[in-house]
Amino acid sequence: MGEAAYSSIAGVSSAPEGNGFLGEYMNLEYGQRWVLASHVEGIPQLKNFELRRFAISELSSDEALVKVHYHTVAPGVRAKLAGGTYTAQVKQGEVIPAVGVGVVVKSNTSDLQKGDFVTGELGWASHAFVKASQLEVLDPRIFGCDDIPLDSAIGALGVPGLTAYFGLLKVGAAKPEETILVSSASGAVGSTVGQIAKISGCRVIGIAGSQEKCTELVTNFGFDAAINYRTEHDLAAAIQAAASQGIDLYFDNVGGKISEAAAVNMNINGRMVICGQTSEYNLPEPRGFKAMTQLIFGRLTLRGFVVYDYSFEFDAARKQLAQWLREGKLLHAPSIIDGIDLAANVFIKQFSQKGPGRPLIRAT
Amino acid sequence: MGEAAYSSIAGVSSAPEGNGFLGEYMNLEYGQRWVLASHVEGIPQLKNFELRRFAISELSSDEALVKVHYHTVAPGVRAKLAGGTYTAQVKQGEVIPAVGVGVVVKSNTSDLQKGDFVTGELGWASHAFVKASQLEVLDPRIFGCDDIPLDSAIGALGVPGLTAYFGLLKVGAAKPEETILVSSASGAVGSTVGQIAKISGCRVIGIAGSQEKCTELVTNFGFDAAINYRTEHDLAAAIQAAASQGIDLYFDNVGGKISEAAAVNMNINGRMVICGQTSEYNLPEPRGFKAMTQLIFGRLTLRGFVVYDYSFEFDAARKQLAQWLREGKLLHAPSIIDGIDLAANVFIKQFSQKGPGRPLIRAT
Repeated sequence: MGEAAYSSIAGVSSAPEGNGFLGEYMNLEYGQRWVLASHVEGIPQLKNFELRRFAISELSSDEALVKVHYHTVAPGVRAKLAGGTYTAQVKQGEVIPAVGVGVVVKSNTSDLQKGDFVTGELGWASHAFVKASQLEVLDPRIFGCDDIPLDSAIGALGVPGLTAYFGLLKVGAAKPEETILVSSASGAVGSTVGQIAKISGCRVIGIAGSQEKCTELVTNFGFDAAINYRTEHDLAAAIQAAASQGIDLYFDNVGGKISEAAAVNMNINGRMVICGQTSEYNLPEPRGFKAMTQLIFGRLTLRGFVVYDYSFEFDAARKQLAQWLREGKLLHAPSIIDGIDLAANVFIKQFSQKGPGRPLIRAT
Repeated sequence: MGEAAYSSIAGVSSAPEGNGFLGEYMNLEYGQRWVLASHVEGIPQLKNFELRRFAISELSSDEALVKVHYHTVAPGVRAKLAGGTYTAQVKQGEVIPAVGVGVVVKSNTSDLQKGDFVTGELGWASHAFVKASQLEVLDPRIFGCDDIPLDSAIGALGVPGLTAYFGLLKVGAAKPEETILVSSASGAVGSTVGQIAKISGCRVIGIAGSQEKCTELVTNFGFDAAINYRTEHDLAAAIQAAASQGIDLYFDNVGGKISEAAAVNMNINGRMVICGQTSEYNLPEPRGFKAMTQLIFGRLTLRGFVVYDYSFEFDAARKQLAQWLREGKLLHAPSIIDGIDLAANVFIKQFSQKGPGRPLIRAT
């Protein structure tokens, strides 16, 4: 049963869910998945999560079994794990949500064939039972090819990449020659925003949380400048110094003080694309955005968006992103962590500056 | 000199500015104007303002002298009177800014003729020296007519009316059948927003600060519903109860908690037009908008604007507003206060619930 392997990991349950004894008797296979043990307050902790083994039972009609190869541990999920606050969505005992990529190993639906590579909401899990409507089958002309790694389907060619693509080009309507500011710039979304902005002929400034990340943004991802918000005592002044032409478009992943420092540097009629608010997710109640008056004087537009609203255009966008990847214009550079048992640790570390950039969990 | 008349009014200086003695000797006329005595902290107080007499001296070339008939005392001006904070703009000793309407009594410029009715930035003042570029000459086909009162040029047909018109129809792009929520609904801007929305076929809900104002909104201004935010302990629930179809467009004059209660009631893809943030103006530092996460889930757009960006369309808009006024579809209903010496008192009272609705000062 491999229980010993988990002994050093907090929150791991050795008892399989459901009919464990009968499962073993019937020689069933087991999968693993992380569930919410308790609602998160403040910074997420290991005790909030529990890794459970579960029997891989028979499929219902219309269901398929997906073996998950990689899944994300996006910090934005924190918003759904809080108890009784303004963004709570996941209940105790439910699987932690995450986009994953994997392969269909059994299917009871004609819409999914064994061997199909698929992506979608699979959770922090090694295996998932899903309906075809919850998944996208990946285009084998892209993901069957040697030059496109499968994990890019949940990175630069997946939801983070698509979020960057639609947020920057459709919601933000970035134009050549404009100056773009990106917060959480070394994340999976932010690093892709910056690269697409460069491809689009913009000038790009990134904000990140360590000198190492800032160096990576300029050196590896081609940003024109990068600002370490942890060491700048006057972030607004640092942005002003880096943006001699002002900011036309701010791509916001974090909210709070960083967004306020951005707001005072926006050009007239500037746009602020609200993609995430990670600085808010760990607070018992939101801190808020304190530059509302600036919206008036600056004639600013703030717009929130959800990438799934653009799903009918995902195929076309993914082709474009794959082309940029092949041409070397776009870098997909995740930190791959081996083993689903590390998912909670990696998730938590992202809320400090110690976390790896753009982590993906190799689940099986 | 009439000094005795001012004895009960705080902040009135009996000494004329400039060369008072010589002025009397030369038999000059005097005007009066309010200047900033000290920067405002918290709720404005009388000590922050000083009414000064000034000699009406010779005109410079290209200048005209305007006798002010009426001027506004808009609460939004508070934002410009604070000391050392994020919106400070008026210096001590400078005239308090206000839009006014008056008549040209002397002119050194061929662009303005004696007898022209004009509107523009004239300040809290009985007379103003201005250049033609600072003023609009009012169309005599509108304002020369008996059925359009002159003070409407700074009310429903003036900056408040134009702000409502462009904010609702251009910035907000209100459409028939939509549900519109307006804060500070009984103000000069808010009451006009509601009426134009009704003319446009929308359903309109107003938020105001007293039962009397709420009754007036429904009875006199044709709002479908009105909510007294001072007596509702759960404002979001009250909005939800009044808006069975949700809110498509929120016209925001106040910010803060009222805007947050609006945000959670917005329909997907809803728009929030940021016109004013009166709840922020009296704070030493901004409280902020704590519903940023809602922007993402709700796909909301916030847009700030300044009405003067639409000045090239003012003529056409004013004609439309005048037509609605003549047809009885639009009500211009100011509270006219007689005497410039009361301007500061009236301004201050607007920050409590005791103030008159839509006040205008009759200056001369």
